[in-house]
Amino acid sequence: MDGRTARRRVLKVTLDTGTPETTADARHRADLLATEEPLGIRVDGEALTMTMRTPGDDIDLAAGFLVGEAIVSDQHDIKEIKLCDGASCRHEHHESHDDIGNIADITLASGLAVSTDHARRSFMTTSACGVCGKTSIDDICVLPHAPLENDTTTFDAKTLAALPGKLRAAQKVFASTGGLHAAGLFTSAGDLVVVREDVGRHNAVDKLVGHALLNGMLPLAGHALLVSGRASFELVQKTVLAGIPLLAAVSAPSSLAADLADEAGLTLVGFLRGASMNVYTHDHRVTR
Amino acid sequence: MDGRTARRRVLKVTLDTGTPETTADARHRADLLATEEPLGIRVDGEALTMTMRTPGDDIDLAAGFLVGEAIVSDQHDIKEIKLCDGASCRHEHHESHDDIGNIADITLASGLAVSTDHARRSFMTTSACGVCGKTSIDDICVLPHAPLENDTTTFDAKTLAALPGKLRAAQKVFASTGGLHAAGLFTSAGDLVVVREDVGRHNAVDKLVGHALLNGMLPLAGHALLVSGRASFELVQKTVLAGIPLLAAVSAPSSLAADLADEAGLTLVGFLRGASMNVYTHDHRVTR
Repeated sequence: MDGRTARRRVLKVTLDTGTPETTADARHRADLLATEEPLGIRVDGEALTMTMRTPGDDIDLAAGFLVGEAIVSDQHDIKEIKLCDGASCRHEHHESHDDIGNIADITLASGLAVSTDHARRSFMTTSACGVCGKTSIDDICVLPHAPLENDTTTFDAKTLAALPGKLRAAQKVFASTGGLHAAGLFTSAGDLVVVREDVGRHNAVDKLVGHALLNGMLPLAGHALLVSGRASFELVQKTVLAGIPLLAAVSAPSSLAADLADEAGLTLVGFLRGASMNVYTHDHRVTR
Repeated sequence: MDGRTARRRVLKVTLDTGTPETTADARHRADLLATEEPLGIRVDGEALTMTMRTPGDDIDLAAGFLVGEAIVSDQHDIKEIKLCDGASCRHEHHESHDDIGNIADITLASGLAVSTDHARRSFMTTSACGVCGKTSIDDICVLPHAPLENDTTTFDAKTLAALPGKLRAAQKVFASTGGLHAAGLFTSAGDLVVVREDVGRHNAVDKLVGHALLNGMLPLAGHALLVSGRASFELVQKTVLAGIPLLAAVSAPSSLAADLADEAGLTLVGFLRGASMNVYTHDHRVTR
């Protein structure tokens, strides 16, 4: 238990359907749950957003969130990130001791700022993407200047098929709680670079991308990102902004995820499980 | 195809691992994806939030979202909801034809209003819960006046065990895309009342609760809500505000979900699959 899991007493009920009249066995036992707590993200003193996340790697999470919002793209874009302690947060609405460690306070490098428009767009969406009421992809997301089309990396289908097993093996908290999404960054040879877990799938990706940003690894050309769940528009946007040329998901992509991947030059793989996969966009990167 | 799915050409790759050297078969075929598009929700002319959702039941979604934010609790709290068409949205920033049908415009009954505080809290969270930087449950959510503890309904364990099968059978779009979360409302006898699907699990619940609100069914005392994925804090909050005494999830709950359920008098069931389930809170409602 490191803050990422919480112990709880649970009634485990098991039905015995083998008897003429179904009977049920019920007993109390201890169970581990994935921790979920709010993290506020403030930029230059202004509240930008709030997310429900699993504690841990909070600084990476905040940094990665800013990458996904196209606010920063290089480690030098951030002057300082700190988690609030009693001293630095003891003002405004944040007087409670409960806040300690639950607000990430970011100072951007001089010359950078979050525009009012940007902040307003962030506030108006529940999916961490700057959606502003328009269905045109050009209007709802910020694509980077350098399209992924220039990334000539290829990934062997056999290598891709092995990634979900590697991701599961690297998930520490999921094994004990069954409650966490995972995101794993791999090289084109299939080697795991970093894995992050969270109750929110977008948070897992933000933590991973933030780690890369703060270690000077962006853009992540030549890499593949694997997520344990589905591929939404939002995850595609985060992948593109991190400069990753291939996003693979264990489950289905959405229509808008495929549309954006198409436009951004991203190879989008879905239903990557067992010995098969679907390649939705830019399939020239998948060799066999 | 009714707007909830989109057809796409996909490269299906299947590895044959039975041969000495693994070979891959790859062929293009048509595939159906779940549609994901933004829906803006406006209240009394002001933008409240934006969500990425699967089109359909948009009016229910908007109404249910307001229930989950504790803005409305009765069908008479809403004077009118309309989806924007060309005429009613052709002003401000919403001049594009792409907007048509993608903004739900709500007029509250006289005397009701979204407070500035409330709107600001909504803008500051990505999980549709009024989180304001504090980990105390009292501070981050609005619980209804009548606690669920007064709901004396019980649910037989055998009845609960049968619900996931009924939910899956009722999911229309998932069968074709594999890409949608589902929420199902059941009576205590296990009869399905209504099912809703969406790329976002919170949207599926909002659509279901909105349907109930607009049909005068709130509070949903005596009912059970089943969700296809995990149980987050946010889903517990939505369930409680709809007056439902039991929430069951096919997968794991988070720690905060269990904490809030405990406090609100909600019976929280997780890992409801096969012949077993875990009851995390208020297990007196589960009989066997």
